[in-house]
Amino acid sequence: MMISLPTRFEAYGAVKIFELSRVLELDSLGMSSKPSGTHTLDYETMEEYAASTAIVVPVKDEELITLEGVLRAIPHASPIVLVSASQVSPVDVYSREVELARTLHSVTGREILVIHQRDPAWAEVLAGTPLEDMLSGGAVRSGKGEGMILGVLAAAGIGARYVGFIDSDNYVPGAANEYSKIYYAGFSLSESPYTMVRIVWHYKGKLASSDMYLRKRGRVSMHTNSVINYALSRIRRVETDIVRTANSGEHAMSIDLALRMRWAGGFAVEPYQIVQLLEDCFLGLEGGSCRLLPEGVNILQIEARNPHIHAERGDEHIAGMLAESLGTVYHSRLGSDEEVRERILGLLKDYSYEGEPPKPRVYSLEGIDPDKTLSTLLAESQMAHYFK
Amino acid sequence: MMISLPTRFEAYGAVKIFELSRVLELDSLGMSSKPSGTHTLDYETMEEYAASTAIVVPVKDEELITLEGVLRAIPHASPIVLVSASQVSPVDVYSREVELARTLHSVTGREILVIHQRDPAWAEVLAGTPLEDMLSGGAVRSGKGEGMILGVLAAAGIGARYVGFIDSDNYVPGAANEYSKIYYAGFSLSESPYTMVRIVWHYKGKLASSDMYLRKRGRVSMHTNSVINYALSRIRRVETDIVRTANSGEHAMSIDLALRMRWAGGFAVEPYQIVQLLEDCFLGLEGGSCRLLPEGVNILQIEARNPHIHAERGDEHIAGMLAESLGTVYHSRLGSDEEVRERILGLLKDYSYEGEPPKPRVYSLEGIDPDKTLSTLLAESQMAHYFK
Repeated sequence: MMISLPTRFEAYGAVKIFELSRVLELDSLGMSSKPSGTHTLDYETMEEYAASTAIVVPVKDEELITLEGVLRAIPHASPIVLVSASQVSPVDVYSREVELARTLHSVTGREILVIHQRDPAWAEVLAGTPLEDMLSGGAVRSGKGEGMILGVLAAAGIGARYVGFIDSDNYVPGAANEYSKIYYAGFSLSESPYTMVRIVWHYKGKLASSDMYLRKRGRVSMHTNSVINYALSRIRRVETDIVRTANSGEHAMSIDLALRMRWAGGFAVEPYQIVQLLEDCFLGLEGGSCRLLPEGVNILQIEARNPHIHAERGDEHIAGMLAESLGTVYHSRLGSDEEVRERILGLLKDYSYEGEPPKPRVYSLEGIDPDKTLSTLLAESQMAHYFK
Repeated sequence: MMISLPTRFEAYGAVKIFELSRVLELDSLGMSSKPSGTHTLDYETMEEYAASTAIVVPVKDEELITLEGVLRAIPHASPIVLVSASQVSPVDVYSREVELARTLHSVTGREILVIHQRDPAWAEVLAGTPLEDMLSGGAVRSGKGEGMILGVLAAAGIGARYVGFIDSDNYVPGAANEYSKIYYAGFSLSESPYTMVRIVWHYKGKLASSDMYLRKRGRVSMHTNSVINYALSRIRRVETDIVRTANSGEHAMSIDLALRMRWAGGFAVEPYQIVQLLEDCFLGLEGGSCRLLPEGVNILQIEARNPHIHAERGDEHIAGMLAESLGTVYHSRLGSDEEVRERILGLLKDYSYEGEPPKPRVYSLEGIDPDKTLSTLLAESQMAHYFK
């Protein structure tokens, strides 16, 4: 993997946001020199980062063949944490996912942990911890953010130093492979223990059927990026368009960072990461709310070379997703500026969404012991499987 | 890269055709053991094969961004031979391809040779050689096969021990990366100096707009495979369906094999490879026409994990392509069986193609000196560029 070095960054308090960098070569196999202006990973370095990065794959009733492609694409050295929210009845989709993981493990020897978001054992595991809020009716709430939090705990529990997320509804296994390597490249580039790598998709509008979906996600992302950039511009009084990855589902971070962050539930999870880092470690810096000092956090934004092509799902509504996404800004200190709130309400109105966007449900991981969490889960659960 | 070991092969004279094997993991980064039933490439081995494999990318007026994705996906160690048949006027598409290659080389340092099929210098280079037949009106004939032959000569000329072909109209860079690694895996698996690796696409019918195209190619391939298998079954009197890759555009071979084979022009190029190997080294074995003895040739067939998604081009007609493809069998010794010829004519009739399919135009590379060919081209040509 060879990426271009970001040529500049902007610093907001203890938050450094790097300009977009790009993948120059998917595979630097056999590369001896390191051309200037590039960051090139040799295989030893890549292997080292791969082995310490757990890849969390959230899955919910995805076609097995698509999930299989993603799992087979993640470099062997990275342990996989499959976090399922799939149905168990009338058809037991979850048991097929477990079977797939078992098969992959037995043929290739790779390490895979499979957990279920609605596993009743979570009630016991999380009761009395700061994450008790995640429970509702004896199980972890449904929601993308909630599943990702479980993934972070599991990744930390198996001893990973980094955690990366890769969606399971990706038709291009090569993209999942590339995302993993981008994570390794980003981690090896950053000098802070608090590092986040966020991926920008590289896609073209040629494939008519998928184009529609890509465009929709693009719109939520475009608006959220522009609102966050507008808020930053208003505060600084210098216009910026540095944020390109507000809704980036494909992202990764050091475990040290993941455990110190607050996490939002549902679809607010990705933009809330950026919003709360800015809130705590830029606007709240003087008030002592930043837990990432003295090093501060590096947010790297890297454009992948593969297109991101995924299934069109009927259950996603752009207005609702946009509201959840912009709600993270609206209800934050970035949204204390009246102009910013007006802009958010105006944008939502264009999508026929009336009123204030929802406030994100927020969870703190402070005080959680991931080792104990995972070992209790594995001891209590009938659904979790650790193939290693 | 981890592939499943083929569990069996069929031998036809000096031609061994291996059963389909599959990619089990795109990336065996960090793999220490080699599970039984698999063939796993470590990075040292992969690098060794990558460095000795030239990847030939034929291109004809492709969108630059698609071509760029393919070029950036080929592992750094493999030199690229870009064989262009793109227009030079009214818009000079070729000069943009040269510029792209120059940019890639100057940023990443990778080796790229760019040649043009209609370069007038070829007239001088090929005159008086056994490949003089390829000339027509002072330039090399248009045609996919003809371009590939130039690619083989160039690959041999720069000292490659292996040559692999990867189409430039591939929207998934990760697929091009995977094909390269499949070639390396196949070469490292084979013990004969005469080895061919042919790729089977792994695709799903989800992407409606591309599905149509994939299905069409699938039909030509399906019929050609079935006709070749039928011919083999008739000769052996044991039914077989071993041939799965008759029309595989993505394939690779050792230079020793490439220079000993005869090559067909146009779209007949891929099926003709299999047909003439069977003709010379199975049916013609006793008559002394096989030049691949005593080792014989290994044909490996490997299914890629990435989908193959490419542009829908208006200029391809299924009936014509099918006729060119089946013509290779019809006019060969495999087609001397009346039943086989009847089946071919019947299939073509279903596509409203009347009469006999065309006889392939065939070229022999015997007696060609690739080093001299390339050095003369580079000395004489105003169009060829070697960035290294």
